[in-house]
Amino acid sequence: MDEKVSHYVEQNRDRFLSELQEFLRFASVSAQPAHRPDMRSCAQWLIDHFRSIGLEASLVEGDGHPIVRARAAGRSDRRLIIYGHYDVQPVDPLDEWLTPPFEPTVRDGQLWARGATDDKGQVFAHVKALEAILNTAGAPAGEVLFLLEGEEECGGTVLPHYLEREKDQLAAGTAGVVVSDSEMVDENTPAITYALRGTAAMELTVQGPRRDLHSGTYGGAVGNPAAALAWMLSQCLNPAGEITIDGFHDGVRPLADWEKENFAQLGHQDEAFRQEAGVSALLGPDEATTLEKVWARPTFEINGIYGGYLGQGGKTIIPASATAKITMRLVPDQDPQKVIQTVKRHLQAVCPDFARLTIRDAFATPAVCFDIDSPLIRSGRRALEQGFGSEPRFIRCGGSIPVVETFARCLKAPVLLMGFGLTSNGAHSPNEHFALKSFYQAIRASACLALDASAYQGTS
Amino acid sequence: MDEKVSHYVEQNRDRFLSELQEFLRFASVSAQPAHRPDMRSCAQWLIDHFRSIGLEASLVEGDGHPIVRARAAGRSDRRLIIYGHYDVQPVDPLDEWLTPPFEPTVRDGQLWARGATDDKGQVFAHVKALEAILNTAGAPAGEVLFLLEGEEECGGTVLPHYLEREKDQLAAGTAGVVVSDSEMVDENTPAITYALRGTAAMELTVQGPRRDLHSGTYGGAVGNPAAALAWMLSQCLNPAGEITIDGFHDGVRPLADWEKENFAQLGHQDEAFRQEAGVSALLGPDEATTLEKVWARPTFEINGIYGGYLGQGGKTIIPASATAKITMRLVPDQDPQKVIQTVKRHLQAVCPDFARLTIRDAFATPAVCFDIDSPLIRSGRRALEQGFGSEPRFIRCGGSIPVVETFARCLKAPVLLMGFGLTSNGAHSPNEHFALKSFYQAIRASACLALDASAYQGTS
Repeated sequence: MDEKVSHYVEQNRDRFLSELQEFLRFASVSAQPAHRPDMRSCAQWLIDHFRSIGLEASLVEGDGHPIVRARAAGRSDRRLIIYGHYDVQPVDPLDEWLTPPFEPTVRDGQLWARGATDDKGQVFAHVKALEAILNTAGAPAGEVLFLLEGEEECGGTVLPHYLEREKDQLAAGTAGVVVSDSEMVDENTPAITYALRGTAAMELTVQGPRRDLHSGTYGGAVGNPAAALAWMLSQCLNPAGEITIDGFHDGVRPLADWEKENFAQLGHQDEAFRQEAGVSALLGPDEATTLEKVWARPTFEINGIYGGYLGQGGKTIIPASATAKITMRLVPDQDPQKVIQTVKRHLQAVCPDFARLTIRDAFATPAVCFDIDSPLIRSGRRALEQGFGSEPRFIRCGGSIPVVETFARCLKAPVLLMGFGLTSNGAHSPNEHFALKSFYQAIRASACLALDASAYQGTS
Repeated sequence: MDEKVSHYVEQNRDRFLSELQEFLRFASVSAQPAHRPDMRSCAQWLIDHFRSIGLEASLVEGDGHPIVRARAAGRSDRRLIIYGHYDVQPVDPLDEWLTPPFEPTVRDGQLWARGATDDKGQVFAHVKALEAILNTAGAPAGEVLFLLEGEEECGGTVLPHYLEREKDQLAAGTAGVVVSDSEMVDENTPAITYALRGTAAMELTVQGPRRDLHSGTYGGAVGNPAAALAWMLSQCLNPAGEITIDGFHDGVRPLADWEKENFAQLGHQDEAFRQEAGVSALLGPDEATTLEKVWARPTFEINGIYGGYLGQGGKTIIPASATAKITMRLVPDQDPQKVIQTVKRHLQAVCPDFARLTIRDAFATPAVCFDIDSPLIRSGRRALEQGFGSEPRFIRCGGSIPVVETFARCLKAPVLLMGFGLTSNGAHSPNEHFALKSFYQAIRASACLALDASAYQGTS
């Protein structure tokens, strides 16, 4: 740890905090049109702030909320991109907040505000790390380029379109992307998330009769499309929750030995997890651990199902149609397009003769898994250890962060997922908060990374 | 056919029609509270009309729209009950009516109005038959008791409560019940419906996690209740639409030889039926005919299914629960309570371990099947032949008419389902109509029945 940087952070603790509070006061709720002016003011505040500490900064406009782009020159022309987002989730239910979501308050060593952990607090740790470097060491070891989007919480297109458009220019010289929008193991144990599951989605509609039919007049002679849909879904998953589609698991990469050992050492508490999920029993038992199931195995989920009469009481009809919304979580090295084709073929094959199947909105993004021995990730590991005083753990994530795959694909660069939040921080919930201790530790970790020349080596 | 009665009907054709038009002008829509005054006026008009032609008449009040009760003494103290209803369906979509629904209009030999066929036209044929008898023969062969309810279209309790309450008194001396709220084979061929399917209903809810869960965090380790429901339903029906619940078919009465022959002679047109249903194929092929399937076999229908996210686009959740609304059509001699118990036990047995099943609102009413050799039905057959000049056919009905089962159970009497409508008459639809020819033929048939002493013999 650079002594001067460390000293600078110590000296400016209170100012850093009050600046973060300023950042958090913007009600930058991207999903709500009424907050468009707040989005704009927040982006402009970031621009001004970046410039005030010595970075070039500008807005990247698109069809939605702008990206804040800021650049600090480095000692080499290799580049690290730091990704984050300045938009936040809506705040409702508002009456469950102990202090107002946009009046950041310090209490019990935590900063309470919407966006405190997701993602303004994490973003701002990187910003303050750059300020500390520019005011002490003078420059990071390579160029640092901030790309802070305003549409993470509303699923916009400005950042993906920008990456597609500028990919050649951005790829040249970029050694990696740092994303701080994930979690630590616990408040004393930082983590690097080296793999994310991908997603495949489709909507199935099974059509029976042209209109709802009287079940007394037609029942027995006309097939029921809701029954057809139930049958088809039963041919995809068995009652143990296992996927029974031929070829679905093609290519699934088995866990490496180091991963099995690592998972075991993470000390996952199944009973606590079960209680948190609110279920009487987890799936299984079988040979796979819970972490393997949620991190390294594909799934087939019915997210929604509907058809026929949904109101109070009953209605004696054969429904005209029934629909299921399906998403699958994919793992390395499943080929998303092959999975989609396999599932489509299987569903057509098990669709009863009397029904007509339509599949809409089928799309898929692959899982990602980064080599933990890349210079970037090794550097991230050292930086976290120095910043937090504790060795980081390697974890995977069962969810998908589409932007990570977009970065990896467009820039052909590794992504370091180095998050500073905790599950208990209440992201997306009332009373979101961020530990002040984590904030300052994150600044130190970020500074270590930016000052480490080997972080800029890329995979080569 | 009694000559004097026939002559009387001929002499009074125009007045009968204009009286029916008066009856049809009441907007007696039982389901719409705004029409309560119209319901009341219509019931009072019936009372006045019955009294004007020489019957005792009164209202039976209850928790809803009243029953109009009218009595004509007969030559014996044996009794026939004539059931019908004076309430009608709502009229929307109003702009599809060629002439206003409550301004009865004669066009092309048909009377066009809401209620023309369902059920005012059919009811009024019986009323005019009694008038013709009282003015010619002097009295029917036994007592005739009209019970005309005002809640057939809105599912009220006034009539069932009345029947339960008065069953002993009503049963004594009652030889049978005549219901004219069903259909003929075609405009030249009257029909007697001798069997109706029963109904069993239940609502299944499969509970998984306490709340919707993030499918990235929990997917793979936590079971999906929509998948559990689909599995359970797939264990009730196979893709050919056959019910695979052990014991479900216990007691199902096979078709008698005369029924098979009769069904074959009815000349059912499968291709027309398929087109009407709007499906690419009917269930099957198998050894059963379409009429056997819809009239004499039980069904298991999913009327509605829902769970999880039902909105636009997608949401990556494991839903907390999923629900299916189920109705079954029952046939003679299934025991409805046993069917309910069998299905409940089966569903519990196939419910995956991770899910919790709740079954709500389970109820069942049995199928009915009347002996076509009973004196009442034999008399009905003669009456229809004389009234319509054509031999009636015996048909069954795949639907359920709950009041028929209530009458049969409370009064332990046979029910003669002798309907004068046609499927094409547009009951429940815009431009409902009733053939004037059928109206006058029905008056004659009803008079024949009321004058036939053997109709009052009951089953004994």
